[in-house]
Amino acid sequence: MLGRMVEIKDMLGKHQVIRADGRKVDELRPVRITRHFTDAPEGSVLIECGNTRVMCTATFTPGVPRWRKDSGLGWVTAEYAMLPRATAERTDRESVKGKLGGRTMEISRLIGRCLRGVVDMKALGENQIQLDCDVLQADGGTRTASVTGAYVALVDAVNWAERNHHIKSAARVLKDTVSAVSVGVINGTPMLDLPYIEDSQAMTDMNVAMTGSGAFIELQGTAEHRPFTRAELGTLLDLAEKGNKELQAAQRAALALD
Amino acid sequence: MLGRMVEIKDMLGKHQVIRADGRKVDELRPVRITRHFTDAPEGSVLIECGNTRVMCTATFTPGVPRWRKDSGLGWVTAEYAMLPRATAERTDRESVKGKLGGRTMEISRLIGRCLRGVVDMKALGENQIQLDCDVLQADGGTRTASVTGAYVALVDAVNWAERNHHIKSAARVLKDTVSAVSVGVINGTPMLDLPYIEDSQAMTDMNVAMTGSGAFIELQGTAEHRPFTRAELGTLLDLAEKGNKELQAAQRAALALD
Amino acid sequence: MLGRMVEIKDMLGKHQVIRADGRKVDELRPVRITRHFTDAPEGSVLIECGNTRVMCTATFTPGVPRWRKDSGLGWVTAEYAMLPRATAERTDRESVKGKLGGRTMEISRLIGRCLRGVVDMKALGENQIQLDCDVLQADGGTRTASVTGAYVALVDAVNWAERNHHIKSAARVLKDTVSAVSVGVINGTPMLDLPYIEDSQAMTDMNVAMTGSGAFIELQGTAEHRPFTRAELGTLLDLAEKGNKELQAAQRAALALD
Amino acid sequence: MLGRMVEIKDMLGKHQVIRADGRKVDELRPVRITRHFTDAPEGSVLIECGNTRVMCTATFTPGVPRWRKDSGLGWVTAEYAMLPRATAERTDRESVKGKLGGRTMEISRLIGRCLRGVVDMKALGENQIQLDCDVLQADGGTRTASVTGAYVALVDAVNWAERNHHIKSAARVLKDTVSAVSVGVINGTPMLDLPYIEDSQAMTDMNVAMTGSGAFIELQGTAEHRPFTRAELGTLLDLAEKGNKELQAAQRAALALD
Amino acid sequence: MLGRMVEIKDMLGKHQVIRADGRKVDELRPVRITRHFTDAPEGSVLIECGNTRVMCTATFTPGVPRWRKDSGLGWVTAEYAMLPRATAERTDRESVKGKLGGRTMEISRLIGRCLRGVVDMKALGENQIQLDCDVLQADGGTRTASVTGAYVALVDAVNWAERNHHIKSAARVLKDTVSAVSVGVINGTPMLDLPYIEDSQAMTDMNVAMTGSGAFIELQGTAEHRPFTRAELGTLLDLAEKGNKELQAAQRAALALD
Amino acid sequence: MLGRMVEIKDMLGKHQVIRADGRKVDELRPVRITRHFTDAPEGSVLIECGNTRVMCTATFTPGVPRWRKDSGLGWVTAEYAMLPRATAERTDRESVKGKLGGRTMEISRLIGRCLRGVVDMKALGENQIQLDCDVLQADGGTRTASVTGAYVALVDAVNWAERNHHIKSAARVLKDTVSAVSVGVINGTPMLDLPYIEDSQAMTDMNVAMTGSGAFIELQGTAEHRPFTRAELGTLLDLAEKGNKELQAAQRAALALD
Repeated sequence: MLGRMVEIKDMLGKHQVIRADGRKVDELRPVRITRHFTDAPEGSVLIECGNTRVMCTATFTPGVPRWRKDSGLGWVTAEYAMLPRATAERTDRESVKGKLGGRTMEISRLIGRCLRGVVDMKALGENQIQLDCDVLQADGGTRTASVTGAYVALVDAVNWAERNHHIKSAARVLKDTVSAVSVGVINGTPMLDLPYIEDSQAMTDMNVAMTGSGAFIELQGTAEHRPFTRAELGTLLDLAEKGNKELQAAQRAALALD
Repeated sequence: MLGRMVEIKDMLGKHQVIRADGRKVDELRPVRITRHFTDAPEGSVLIECGNTRVMCTATFTPGVPRWRKDSGLGWVTAEYAMLPRATAERTDRESVKGKLGGRTMEISRLIGRCLRGVVDMKALGENQIQLDCDVLQADGGTRTASVTGAYVALVDAVNWAERNHHIKSAARVLKDTVSAVSVGVINGTPMLDLPYIEDSQAMTDMNVAMTGSGAFIELQGTAEHRPFTRAELGTLLDLAEKGNKELQAAQRAALALD
Repeated sequence: MLGRMVEIKDMLGKHQVIRADGRKVDELRPVRITRHFTDAPEGSVLIECGNTRVMCTATFTPGVPRWRKDSGLGWVTAEYAMLPRATAERTDRESVKGKLGGRTMEISRLIGRCLRGVVDMKALGENQIQLDCDVLQADGGTRTASVTGAYVALVDAVNWAERNHHIKSAARVLKDTVSAVSVGVINGTPMLDLPYIEDSQAMTDMNVAMTGSGAFIELQGTAEHRPFTRAELGTLLDLAEKGNKELQAAQRAALALD
Repeated sequence: MLGRMVEIKDMLGKHQVIRADGRKVDELRPVRITRHFTDAPEGSVLIECGNTRVMCTATFTPGVPRWRKDSGLGWVTAEYAMLPRATAERTDRESVKGKLGGRTMEISRLIGRCLRGVVDMKALGENQIQLDCDVLQADGGTRTASVTGAYVALVDAVNWAERNHHIKSAARVLKDTVSAVSVGVINGTPMLDLPYIEDSQAMTDMNVAMTGSGAFIELQGTAEHRPFTRAELGTLLDLAEKGNKELQAAQRAALALD
Repeated sequence: MLGRMVEIKDMLGKHQVIRADGRKVDELRPVRITRHFTDAPEGSVLIECGNTRVMCTATFTPGVPRWRKDSGLGWVTAEYAMLPRATAERTDRESVKGKLGGRTMEISRLIGRCLRGVVDMKALGENQIQLDCDVLQADGGTRTASVTGAYVALVDAVNWAERNHHIKSAARVLKDTVSAVSVGVINGTPMLDLPYIEDSQAMTDMNVAMTGSGAFIELQGTAEHRPFTRAELGTLLDLAEKGNKELQAAQRAALALD
Repeated sequence: MLGRMVEIKDMLGKHQVIRADGRKVDELRPVRITRHFTDAPEGSVLIECGNTRVMCTATFTPGVPRWRKDSGLGWVTAEYAMLPRATAERTDRESVKGKLGGRTMEISRLIGRCLRGVVDMKALGENQIQLDCDVLQADGGTRTASVTGAYVALVDAVNWAERNHHIKSAARVLKDTVSAVSVGVINGTPMLDLPYIEDSQAMTDMNVAMTGSGAFIELQGTAEHRPFTRAELGTLLDLAEKGNKELQAAQRAALALD
């Protein structure tokens, strides 16, 4: 299927790779962010990145876990899960198996760290925000879509908390914005925002979470199949920077509506 | 909140109860059934009954579990789950707790029995259909919505299997149709299709699954708070019969589209 | 084996079905209720319904679970289990498997609801009664025998609590009596109190818990193999009513002894 | 309560200790062994040692666990459990807790070793016998009663297997008989067969399983509260030898009936 | 391999067995006890008995488990585990399997009892000592080496607690010393301190924990493969007594250094 | 404690930070790699990086997990764990808790990916190598020390497999070498190889696994406490490159001995 990826020369004679879905190498899939997707949560967002769809909810609860009591600080945590038929083949439920898999835990922890990275725990006070990212449909990039969508849900929950007098200032709680995107090297070509078909054949695969101010919160590169050089890393980070800027524009646009 | 329920006299002087959401006692909440809600599953349905929203997918897999091998018979099974913020307060994930609760198991088993009740296992042959019912938003009647929605997903999966030559005849696999609805007695008044606010205060609560031909597949009445008489049972079954007929009309309408 | 079931005409020319064990269709198996079966529990009952034998104990404990504290109300709960060789083939222990099966949870919950249905939680005060129903030998109807036996154990525990000044009035705690019986349709014939051989071949199977005053507490009908009509339901409920009356007579007789 | 234990002088002026239940220091509690206690198992025994009552069943299954396949040898294993109200205070079910406690595992393993100690695995052939010891009522010595009762159930199962042509010779499978008894030092006095009240205050506590030919299969002495000397050990073994001889007489008497 | 065991006559014509590793039947393997093996624990000991190597740490924590609160008494407990490649074939981790095996629990409990047997809980006050025995390399006798090594770690932790004013007197906490050794009957010959190759073929196997004053704390003899007589028991206890005396000398020597 | 970190000017007037343990910012802690640390495993290494000590064993087993069968490819996997008192406060065992924590899973997966990154699965053939990394003492950098040590154990196991004719050529199995090191930003200063005291206060923390040929296999940067810029990333990668080169020299030196 990746065979459908073609190389053409552009007018200047530069080689240009066209991907199976018609995108350029530095092009994001279409992003759609729907706020107020369900009614109960303080923040509820459906994020769609191409065919990947993740429902992100933010639950605001006064009080913090026991180990955090009397610290004056808040807490933000995240849980990620996939519905059984988010994927082409059905995946057994982890609730039925009786334990969480390593992949689930790893991703949950990553999302939590990314969002804690933009929250001022002192301004949040002794309150907790739990982010739940449930993948309805998976086509690559579910963990980065989760970070990007969860941030919007977080903002809604923080604003809810301000309106309901649980916190003084939403603006002070949110130190910065955050989004994440995947990049990878496919057949030697660095690319932005990999769908499943590319991701599964990537030799190098990197997830990059960045703040609105352009700094890194998380950088996770894995190259089990072929190590990557420092030069390739540079190109990947350039792509990630471009992608995250566009995702942050989409977040702003969604948050501007009301 | 139930205080908002009012009794008025209609033109004939008959007392008439108007419920908090404006419905009559024998009126269903608006039903919406969306097929092809996601792409990967053989059947994928979003069913909305008022504010209750359940995503029902059907997975068709050639082959049966070990205990069923060489029987010439198929198998149909179901799993039910709630997303953490389907409810007003966040519910901990059963995958994180490491075990399924009794309620989840009870409902999963109920859905499975209802759907097996309309499938001809011989015509299905040694193939398995797994129904996954994930509650995105819960406002009462999630288990009955699951049965009603899962039936539509089942039909899509069975038709898919016919088109893909896994089975000979979808028509022979599907012996009948099935839907389910809840009924209950609130402050002495029998009512159809209870939202959460009513359900939580019902003295008697009954879930009724019926076939298109008007027979019962499951009947589960619980009256922990006030036993019910045989006369009340009669009224409840009348309401359930009316509700199921309407739900089956909605199923037919959804299946007629393509 | 069910082939041994024969149809004969009685003197009036009416067809009469004689079951494998010689009973009429509306006849209970012999019931034996032994109180004080063991010494430690506040209530300890062995109930035998034909070859089904269940040991039911009631544990009275001052205090209630945390979620119920300071409510002024008591709590009643139940746990059901089968010994490994209660059945013809050995069943693995759920303690060894490390989790409860869905059937066990479903039945435990059913028994709990039935008994809560006849207890006045206010009169019980902040005290808890735990009912343990352990099946020593299983020949069909173990869940209904559990309800019937557990009620007797409950009465003994409530009387014990009165004698020991944990509650003021046993009579006020016990709002009504409760028993349960199974009914089903075998080869088209509705029958009362199914042993395993009939139960496993029943097309419709219903468990009916009723109060001494003749109302329903639980009604669970399952018809995975052939849906049942409203007319059949009527006959089944007639049989259940007859059976429960006789079981309640057996409960009274057992409780009269001392 | 142990204060009721009195010391009197016998006619010869020798001090004699009379225990709370009136027994002499070297006297067993009354033993009752009921075979065919339930119908389904190949061996089913109720053993009562004073107020301790254990139901022991033996399940004979052709075939052995995978790790034993093609060895030509059989396998014998045991599981021990207590019903929740076997004890004065209710014990939570291990199935509900989701794991076996250390005590349960330790005792299950002990019983298994004792019975394997008298079985010729070659003569048993590739067949398995599972012993289930469920304590209905606990008053000390439940593990030793389990061994003694399980042996009788084992004999019944082995004889059943001979009658049903699963094995050639029951006599060759059973190399010897086995029983077990507890002994302990209470307030400095060595005693035989400790009920709970004595057991819980024993400074030294020993369980001794012996064959009919008078040799030891298991010897487990624990002296957390006061170490014991070699001389005390000698006296305890004398008592255990006497007790086991009497238990083996009771086993023989039970097995003689039919 | 045991075939390498040879019998020779000594000068007096007495038969003498020489074991595979060249030891006499009553000879211990070389013992090495290294204190301060790691830095963090209050007591940290590496014990080597031949090729068996166990790391024993003692953790002193002010306070006791909830069930022990306000008793004025301390608590001592132990956990035993094997690293996956302590053995010739890799053993799956119990953390990965999600549950402790029976053998692990049995041994952990044994170690705990042995050490509690020499601790004055009143003198310890409401403090807890946890002993962790992790087997780095297993060649028989890991549980007895654990007891012997854990005692030295316990002493270091108790002395640490005295120096840090958690307890008044280390001397009063430690009522006695304790060590343990295995003995067994191999091909009819009683032997001291069995390495794996002997242990796996022992017909009788006994673990004996003794105090410095020569009394028994634990005696666990198992003779699944051939029961042992009282005479054999006598010889085994003689060997165990000799072995424990020598182990206690090694403990003293290690504790004398500083 | 970090207060002990001082800034001095060197002869050229350049500021120079001296860390609490006297190291320069680009200086590794002393590394010691001991091969053949235990006898049973095919590879057994103790690696010490400052006070961090990890025991790494490699288990070579013919055959692969089921999902890999008949692929002609081998498999390499890793498990990481900490002994309870590797840390200043005792950590509960995951085997006792009955589940693996997210951190453990995350690290196990990281180590596995790093080592698979240098193994030619085709040359390995259908054989499996399991790496077990057990932390005896933890002072920061346990996961990177595990990668570095596990590589040496892997080499020993691959050479063992060649000598024992399980594989044809060890040289072809090992495509490259791999080591890993941590870097981080402390109070604004990028530093190499963080001990616990620095790691716990790092604002940015990165683990970098590199091959002998200088490419990246894993890059995991986390900046929960303060995002890092691309310039800082550059400095961190320079430090990591320097550190990994020195670690690879230590690996070579260890492997040169025999």
